[in-house]
Amino acid sequence: MSKEFNIAIVGATGAVGVEFLRIIQERKLPVKHLILLASARSVGKEFLFQGSTIQVQELTHESFSGVDIALFSAGSSISKEYALSAISAGAVVVDNSSAFRMDNEVPLVVPEINASDILKHRGIIANPNCTTAICVMALYPLHLEFGLKRVFASSYQAVSGTGAKAISELGGQIEAITKGEAIKKEVYPHQIAFNVLPHVDSFLASGYTKEEMKLQNEGRKIMHLPDFQASITCVRVPVYRAHSAAVTAEFEQPVDLDRARAAIERFPGVCLRDDVSQNLYPTPLDVSGTDDCQVGRLRKDCVLENGLSFWVVGDQLLKGAALNAVQIAEKLLQL
Amino acid sequence: MSKEFNIAIVGATGAVGVEFLRIIQERKLPVKHLILLASARSVGKEFLFQGSTIQVQELTHESFSGVDIALFSAGSSISKEYALSAISAGAVVVDNSSAFRMDNEVPLVVPEINASDILKHRGIIANPNCTTAICVMALYPLHLEFGLKRVFASSYQAVSGTGAKAISELGGQIEAITKGEAIKKEVYPHQIAFNVLPHVDSFLASGYTKEEMKLQNEGRKIMHLPDFQASITCVRVPVYRAHSAAVTAEFEQPVDLDRARAAIERFPGVCLRDDVSQNLYPTPLDVSGTDDCQVGRLRKDCVLENGLSFWVVGDQLLKGAALNAVQIAEKLLQL
Repeated sequence: MSKEFNIAIVGATGAVGVEFLRIIQERKLPVKHLILLASARSVGKEFLFQGSTIQVQELTHESFSGVDIALFSAGSSISKEYALSAISAGAVVVDNSSAFRMDNEVPLVVPEINASDILKHRGIIANPNCTTAICVMALYPLHLEFGLKRVFASSYQAVSGTGAKAISELGGQIEAITKGEAIKKEVYPHQIAFNVLPHVDSFLASGYTKEEMKLQNEGRKIMHLPDFQASITCVRVPVYRAHSAAVTAEFEQPVDLDRARAAIERFPGVCLRDDVSQNLYPTPLDVSGTDDCQVGRLRKDCVLENGLSFWVVGDQLLKGAALNAVQIAEKLLQL
Repeated sequence: MSKEFNIAIVGATGAVGVEFLRIIQERKLPVKHLILLASARSVGKEFLFQGSTIQVQELTHESFSGVDIALFSAGSSISKEYALSAISAGAVVVDNSSAFRMDNEVPLVVPEINASDILKHRGIIANPNCTTAICVMALYPLHLEFGLKRVFASSYQAVSGTGAKAISELGGQIEAITKGEAIKKEVYPHQIAFNVLPHVDSFLASGYTKEEMKLQNEGRKIMHLPDFQASITCVRVPVYRAHSAAVTAEFEQPVDLDRARAAIERFPGVCLRDDVSQNLYPTPLDVSGTDDCQVGRLRKDCVLENGLSFWVVGDQLLKGAALNAVQIAEKLLQL
């Protein structure tokens, strides 16, 4: 690869897409040309990038000529349809969808945890599920210290995890309720304003959702822990941005709170916000827009012998999506 | 006791107090006189009861003359200060605060589970913590079937659990944000609108909150299970009414989904709302104002050998507070 690179963003107008644009500028990626791709109805929309205006182009199989890295965030079906065209044109795909994550040929990467897996790529590198990425940022440093066995967790997931339309739906419902008007439900099957829904992604025959199985399945692959077990209930909450999770984790070895705190503090990309005497713990509102995941409410679990319980929050559009993908792109550019 | 009874409500103007009033009428308790008691600043407020207007009186140590049953819901310190005066005057106290719940002399009762404990009372019967009451309504029928050992849980608690001021705080914050004005924080240490706070009740040295330890401590006492273990993270969410919990429960015996469903369906006070193919699961918005707790998302746990995971929602002002207390009062009136 040359010293400046052509980067394409697929899904440029989505909630994650606009974060790609911002983060690429913020982190000063060596970009020669930035190509913004989306569906036909977004063609012509303009975004400012490094002082120039870039128009959104329609995504086609011919969009990837000369592209070095294509950042995909437009859903699984788009990734499945266009990733091969990007690879054929010589690009490396960093895919934010779930399309290829569990493919044995595709590395699934959180750079702080398994950056070296990038070396094994054959054209596609997958970006993990947002809740999974945020949880493993807390779990992995604890694993290094105590040996992770299994977790029981519950999530509190923001509407922006669903996308830009869901942000509008929450805002629209709040406005309608304030005015005493009927609410509109187009994205979620039930009202999300002033409500919580134990329903993220579609249901499997087991009664779990696809989203819920990602923590175990993707967690095993990212952390290189084939026996890792995770049971989670994923819940949508009326929060605009940043996902939270309450996690109880069981370890091989006895846990020590001071060592646990130190392990989290020295791990890159995650920080402690944990002084309950000062009411200090992470909240999604505080974490929104910040790169690092935050861990609080760290305590020895009262049920499990070698257990720790904690609360972890991360901006799912950043570490859970765009930031992690751009970090993968940065590693690729260094190869 | 005579055929008609004098009932006093302590904390008559609070979020739970107004539910007491409504439920006593709805369930047609044989009330001769209803005495509404609150602090001095609420004196003179009027409520309609069975077609007559009742004025709120100031709570004093002399308020309980002739009272048969005193329903307390004005916080622990009020209960501690005035319960003895009520008992001395000949009343039986049904106390919604945490003041006496773990007192060995005081029965802690969910009538569907341990009504016979009422017989042991010495003047006070305690009403359980709201989240605990809702969780045990799902756990106890499953315990009867499979033998309950321990649970891992997370709660999604509505602001009305904190009281009437917290309802105003959420509404006021939403209004301020809509208008682009600064929000006010008086009840919660952080913004609750569009946010979630892993903080319900005060923190203990262990890192758990008092609220979080209630599920284990009160659960043991209500279910007569001295070895029951529970690890929960209690979280406040921007929902007006009804508490939800995601629960993973481990049992002595192998679990069977059909038997689990049947056990919940035949238990009084709790019902199944569980057909994910139709997006049917309980939500706090749907459960608000309804007496029965609802269970959904029932599934064999993917981590625990004899485990079930589920989602339970209950109106914490009803089964979690006023309804349960009135049910206890009904049992007392039948003695």
